[in-house]
Amino acid sequence: MEVFIEPIGRLMNEFSKLPGVGKKTAQRYAYKVVGMSESEARAFADAIVNVKRKVRFCKVCGNFTENEVCDICRTRDKSQICVVKEPKDVIALEKLHEYKGVYHVLHGVIDPMNGVSPNDIRIKELLERVGEGGVKEVIMATNPDVEGEATAMYIAKLLKPLGVTVTRLARGVPIGSELEYADEVTLARALIERKQI
Amino acid sequence: MEVFIEPIGRLMNEFSKLPGVGKKTAQRYAYKVVGMSESEARAFADAIVNVKRKVRFCKVCGNFTENEVCDICRTRDKSQICVVKEPKDVIALEKLHEYKGVYHVLHGVIDPMNGVSPNDIRIKELLERVGEGGVKEVIMATNPDVEGEATAMYIAKLLKPLGVTVTRLARGVPIGSELEYADEVTLARALIERKQI
Repeated sequence: MEVFIEPIGRLMNEFSKLPGVGKKTAQRYAYKVVGMSESEARAFADAIVNVKRKVRFCKVCGNFTENEVCDICRTRDKSQICVVKEPKDVIALEKLHEYKGVYHVLHGVIDPMNGVSPNDIRIKELLERVGEGGVKEVIMATNPDVEGEATAMYIAKLLKPLGVTVTRLARGVPIGSELEYADEVTLARALIERKQI
Repeated sequence: MEVFIEPIGRLMNEFSKLPGVGKKTAQRYAYKVVGMSESEARAFADAIVNVKRKVRFCKVCGNFTENEVCDICRTRDKSQICVVKEPKDVIALEKLHEYKGVYHVLHGVIDPMNGVSPNDIRIKELLERVGEGGVKEVIMATNPDVEGEATAMYIAKLLKPLGVTVTRLARGVPIGSELEYADEVTLARALIERKQI
């Protein structure tokens, strides 16, 4: 990047650390910042430092929060726990305004190929929560991919002896899609799990 | 964005100000920052503040610099001035390692439809530079679009009386492209400006 002066090259380098940002995009972002007012740039920098200082993990569910225990854990129905891989999955589900229970963020899924064992994700914490009683249903909402399915099955096996209902998000052809473009695995699954109408 | 906690929502809002960044991308960026170490986030924030503090415009050519006069203006052949719209155009040309002259950044092009008149861009400064003598050629390297062409013609007319050669980047079909997909204006221009081989 020696065609760029040092402060711009350095900022481009920082932007390049964001997911999916290449050299060209980093340059556009950096130039945008150069064109910002002093106070705009300061607000941007502050927001970055602020997020690191204020955001922590809820000690109950593992989701992002500003407090010790998150708003969802403090105010919602604790008899239902929805288990997800990452905080962003909580956002996806919350946007529906459908679910009234609480969450449990695993912060990963079991993935032996990449060295992630059951002890590396928050399974122990989930078992403790269920063990404390009051939980009626645990909804496994890990991704419908190989690791997500395996993790859901693994956890379900551990939860069953605790006398709790374990469910899994329905899988099938996405609504609004065309059968022609559905992948074979999804289509086969949708056929097997067909419902009477 | 009320599903996000305040510090994350605020950072997403800042990221949304970058060109081409929507809600979804802003969320990915913000989550990436949350996952950074304290020192990584600090370095990121510092780079933003630093770029605003250190980067200014070269008082000769108008390009970004850390000094009063940029490295290019201080070390290169001043008999050739390449006129561009924006600092990023300097980068595009510098990457070629072909050009040995200096630049003049207009910071815009004449665009009456959007209220940009000749007085709003750095034309006066260019005339002064050329007026000081020693300049043999001015290369008009504004974009090959309507505003870029009009600006190039306008400036050329002002420069001619000063006894300097004014040139324009060659226009034609892009190398490696297929004629079939060239737009009509480009193809017509390439035909008119055909060269003997």
